[in-house]
Amino acid sequence: MRMSELSRRSGVPVATIKYYLREGLLPQGQATARNQADYSELHVRRLRLIRALIGVRGLSVSETGEVLRGVSEHASDMHQMLGLVLGARPVDKAAAAASPEALGEVDQLLAQVGWKVSEQAPAKHSIAETLTTLRSLGMDVDWRTLLPYAELAHRTAVVDLDQLQDADEPIERAERAVVLTVLLESVLLALRRLAQEDESAKRHGA
Amino acid sequence: MRMSELSRRSGVPVATIKYYLREGLLPQGQATARNQADYSELHVRRLRLIRALIGVRGLSVSETGEVLRGVSEHASDMHQMLGLVLGARPVDKAAAAASPEALGEVDQLLAQVGWKVSEQAPAKHSIAETLTTLRSLGMDVDWRTLLPYAELAHRTAVVDLDQLQDADEPIERAERAVVLTVLLESVLLALRRLAQEDESAKRHGA
Repeated sequence: MRMSELSRRSGVPVATIKYYLREGLLPQGQATARNQADYSELHVRRLRLIRALIGVRGLSVSETGEVLRGVSEHASDMHQMLGLVLGARPVDKAAAAASPEALGEVDQLLAQVGWKVSEQAPAKHSIAETLTTLRSLGMDVDWRTLLPYAELAHRTAVVDLDQLQDADEPIERAERAVVLTVLLESVLLALRRLAQEDESAKRHGA
Repeated sequence: MRMSELSRRSGVPVATIKYYLREGLLPQGQATARNQADYSELHVRRLRLIRALIGVRGLSVSETGEVLRGVSEHASDMHQMLGLVLGARPVDKAAAAASPEALGEVDQLLAQVGWKVSEQAPAKHSIAETLTTLRSLGMDVDWRTLLPYAELAHRTAVVDLDQLQDADEPIERAERAVVLTVLLESVLLALRRLAQEDESAKRHGA
């Protein structure tokens, strides 16, 4: 297909496509004439993944380039690839300086639920920091408080990964993983709020 | 107790307490001498709630004043009070202009799970907007996609409300509701990320 159709199919403006080509995020098309090239379905899928990584996950162009190189290398290793595209998540950006004690508590929680996760997972720091903050506010909480939430998070992750099974192509799966994981965050929190309202009415309502 | 002890017990600086007294967020203490007053446990609890509403939920001083007036009026009505302190949540602030079609889908979802929530709940708009965004990104999703997440959100809300049962005083319950609901948001998302990593390793790992 021509550049104009690639733009229409992917929803990415022509000028942006040219920029991605120059930056090497997108492979060049097959040259058909001077100043004209043919693009394939692969380009459409790749553009959608780029749009998800930049527009939804909020990566920079150079970070996106790194992730895309990783995705190409590990296209056949689904676990590696998901780790790459989901990697350091925006929600965890602030997390950095959790205390060793609080991190130890998170490890106890993980041991209890039997999850194997990477030693340096930013999400571990995020949880440890919140535990510390909650206690500084006088809340009587520890890792046991989080145990029922961890069990529900596991079921959520099972639903999440089921949603990815539909996609055949690794690159399409990577795109679905980014879009669904990041955009569903606000939905999960909104659903929790509505469920709280309903449950509160059942318990305390007129 | 004296102002200095109130400050120590609540963790709020004396100058800030004086400011809240002037703004009417905190009732005056019992005058014991010129320029001296006696404060009670009620003041400690109320200061902690103010700190939660401003520091954790991110309300302004005047918004906090409105919520506190509502909490006093509805102290015996737990459902009203939770609605007030949790009210319009930061996560929903951006939501405003969801399409009627997408809102209709959210209503279908709510009918399916049997939740009764207020007609104008901001969380409904937040979900409707994300459905629209997901579809604009080419994702094949509708309210049925969200059904398993809604069922998990209900279980999460049950755990949430159980956490509030420990608190006897209505004002203490209000404070726990704000702190736990808002601060646990990042924990729930971080737990989901860790659970995804673990589940992905189980399905696709070496």
